Amino acid sequence: MPMTITEKILAAAAGKDYVKPGELINAKVDLVLANDITAPVAIKEFEKIGLPGVWDKERVALVPDHFVPNKDIKSAEQAKMVRDFAHKQELTHYFEVGRMGIEHCLLPEQGLVGPGDVIIGADSHTCTYGALGAFATGVGSTDLAAAMALGETWFKVPESIKFVFNGKLNPWVGGKDLILYTIGKIGVDGALYRAMEFCGEAIEQLSMDGRFTMCNMAIEAGGKNGIIQPDEITRQYVEGRTKRPYTFYTSDPDAQYAEVHEFDVSKIEPQVAFPHLPENARSIREAGNVEIDQAVIGSCTNGRMEDLRIAAQVLKGQKVNRRVRLIVIPGTQEIYRQAMHEGLFDIFLEAGAAVSTPTCGPCLGGYMGILAQGERCIATTNRNFVGRMGHAGSEVYLSNPAVAAASAITGRISHPEEVL
Amino acid sequence: MPMTITEKILAAAAGKDYVKPGELINAKVDLVLANDITAPVAIKEFEKIGLPGVWDKERVALVPDHFVPNKDIKSAEQAKMVRDFAHKQELTHYFEVGRMGIEHCLLPEQGLVGPGDVIIGADSHTCTYGALGAFATGVGSTDLAAAMALGETWFKVPESIKFVFNGKLNPWVGGKDLILYTIGKIGVDGALYRAMEFCGEAIEQLSMDGRFTMCNMAIEAGGKNGIIQPDEITRQYVEGRTKRPYTFYTSDPDAQYAEVHEFDVSKIEPQVAFPHLPENARSIREAGNVEIDQAVIGSCTNGRMEDLRIAAQVLKGQKVNRRVRLIVIPGTQEIYRQAMHEGLFDIFLEAGAAVSTPTCGPCLGGYMGILAQGERCIATTNRNFVGRMGHAGSEVYLSNPAVAAASAITGRISHPEEVL
Repeated sequence: MPMTITEKILAAAAGKDYVKPGELINAKVDLVLANDITAPVAIKEFEKIGLPGVWDKERVALVPDHFVPNKDIKSAEQAKMVRDFAHKQELTHYFEVGRMGIEHCLLPEQGLVGPGDVIIGADSHTCTYGALGAFATGVGSTDLAAAMALGETWFKVPESIKFVFNGKLNPWVGGKDLILYTIGKIGVDGALYRAMEFCGEAIEQLSMDGRFTMCNMAIEAGGKNGIIQPDEITRQYVEGRTKRPYTFYTSDPDAQYAEVHEFDVSKIEPQVAFPHLPENARSIREAGNVEIDQAVIGSCTNGRMEDLRIAAQVLKGQKVNRRVRLIVIPGTQEIYRQAMHEGLFDIFLEAGAAVSTPTCGPCLGGYMGILAQGERCIATTNRNFVGRMGHAGSEVYLSNPAVAAASAITGRISHPEEVL
Repeated sequence: MPMTITEKILAAAAGKDYVKPGELINAKVDLVLANDITAPVAIKEFEKIGLPGVWDKERVALVPDHFVPNKDIKSAEQAKMVRDFAHKQELTHYFEVGRMGIEHCLLPEQGLVGPGDVIIGADSHTCTYGALGAFATGVGSTDLAAAMALGETWFKVPESIKFVFNGKLNPWVGGKDLILYTIGKIGVDGALYRAMEFCGEAIEQLSMDGRFTMCNMAIEAGGKNGIIQPDEITRQYVEGRTKRPYTFYTSDPDAQYAEVHEFDVSKIEPQVAFPHLPENARSIREAGNVEIDQAVIGSCTNGRMEDLRIAAQVLKGQKVNRRVRLIVIPGTQEIYRQAMHEGLFDIFLEAGAAVSTPTCGPCLGGYMGILAQGERCIATTNRNFVGRMGHAGSEVYLSNPAVAAASAITGRISHPEEVL
């Protein structure tokens, strides 16, 4: 029977030859993940049930990244609980302040997730790893606690939707624009509990970083997972990096899809998602005059090397508008060092930006750039819900790094062409 | 009549030939300063009184540094009030996120304070600038509001205490150790409302950064101000940097002092101030076995180039203990860039430290490294009061940057010799 890539990965993890959408399966997981907000809940469950230990010390990754370095006493207590558990359980992949990064930037970089994996994380953007041709999805903390002990969990096999991106990308258009455009077309529940499979010429030519960005935001359309078939670009990324054996799965040509959407990317301009939903995507040429107070470049969506390079390309020799704060947040310590060595920090600092230590920080209203009432921010992050980055009377506009950088310079939402 | 340097500066600012301790004077100020915590209070006063504008747009410096980039909605609202006021009043020296630093590192660096100045700031560590041979002291926000409008304020001329530091400094001993040792000798109210005048062979050989550190902590002994007579080291620092004309004042040989203390610095080892007062200073050799969870290198006390260079000297090729978080916070954007270019960041990152954007952050329990109950931190900051860096059940130990760096490596309070 023909299967999609998602179905094939889940079938293999369930020890079956074949699975079909809607089927309930029990599947082995390759890695479970939690952060400083979700791990404490999972750890309490874990200890309440009286579980003796994790199923595999190499397969439980704990990444305090949301509110660390500790923003307040509560976050300090949470981080401490995660740290104490990690040391007690002797976890290999606990990432301490100074040796860490944003979880969804960090785990691929460290080779802890690979093609064909089944990964669950107590974080909705766990779907990021689908970019490597893995099945990765967010789960609740109770499910995570059980999986930490058992190394397996149940899934309902999702139906798949195929998104075909034909044509050649316009300048300054990348993975962020494709996914914002897609969510704009289908809505924030347009892929509810379904696998979003991205393919087509534009995807085949998309960098690994651009693919991470796309799969990262599958959840913003309600997707169970986002996924891209692994190819030569994937191979180049994982070779010598990914620590466990991996398998390249591909969808059968006659696999069944609940829907198929085809887009001509040559018609897609840089996108901006207006408040207060990612589906409010518009072409930047229809953005109008929107003045901003802050720009944030970073997050698990757009805090990778390619993102920082693009931002630097726009910011080089320019100055941040005097009424705007630009905050640049490299996704991991490795990205931080690489960007520093490539001279990108010089460009950011010369422009008048603040460069933060890696953290989720402002994306979820944590710290490092919270908004006051009435303030507007353009951000390369993934959510622009009411109050997401601060006061309920503030606004977040989502864009790619080039648009965020250009807007920081002009002080209003701007196409990079305006400043170059 | 003979006068001390403090008396001479105040006499000149009051337009008098002579002032004596205890005298109430009205003095012109050269600069007034406030930050994101204190400026909002001053601004409210300013507007409540209905003052039309600041007396001089060049002489009011507003530096949001405590809780910015905004740590939460409240701090965002405060920063916004400061920003709006600065733009409305068209202040020259408002420092935005990305173009700022910790106020007491920033103002000297930017040449906004100089020898002979009278500077008041709504921040207790304003006394830092005494290192340049200025009279600088902290004031309340109401006094600051009046001074913003008038360019003058009243003072009671303080008595002076002379601290003479004889002899040659031991290795790894610097300004931080001298001031901790001094506070240890005289107590946290040992210099209440008095000028602390630091002199002697060891001071004459002390770098500008070491002098800033010493004067910065005068308030920790209750001092009205700390001050060091300007000399060739001062001249080298201010030449080509300080924007206004400046005057080198010196104490008359027969000036009157309330007390004179002489110390032989060759007997002073690196100091550690134990919880919960700066006066609990001990030689590090008497520190015993104190395990730590966090080390912080930064703040208006020890966030300057020399401090980061010393820390890097200790950390080079070493690794931060796996149970310790080391957070390094350069004092200003300029220091950040300089440290980056000198390769210090490479050393910090290779060791496993987090490098923060400039902020006061953890020093006053703001963010960027808050402590949970029971946690211990060694910090190059200036205060170790109960709950200063987080939970009331946490502890802060004050030290110089070399000791903080060494302790981060061993995981317990350590002399740098232990790791080198």
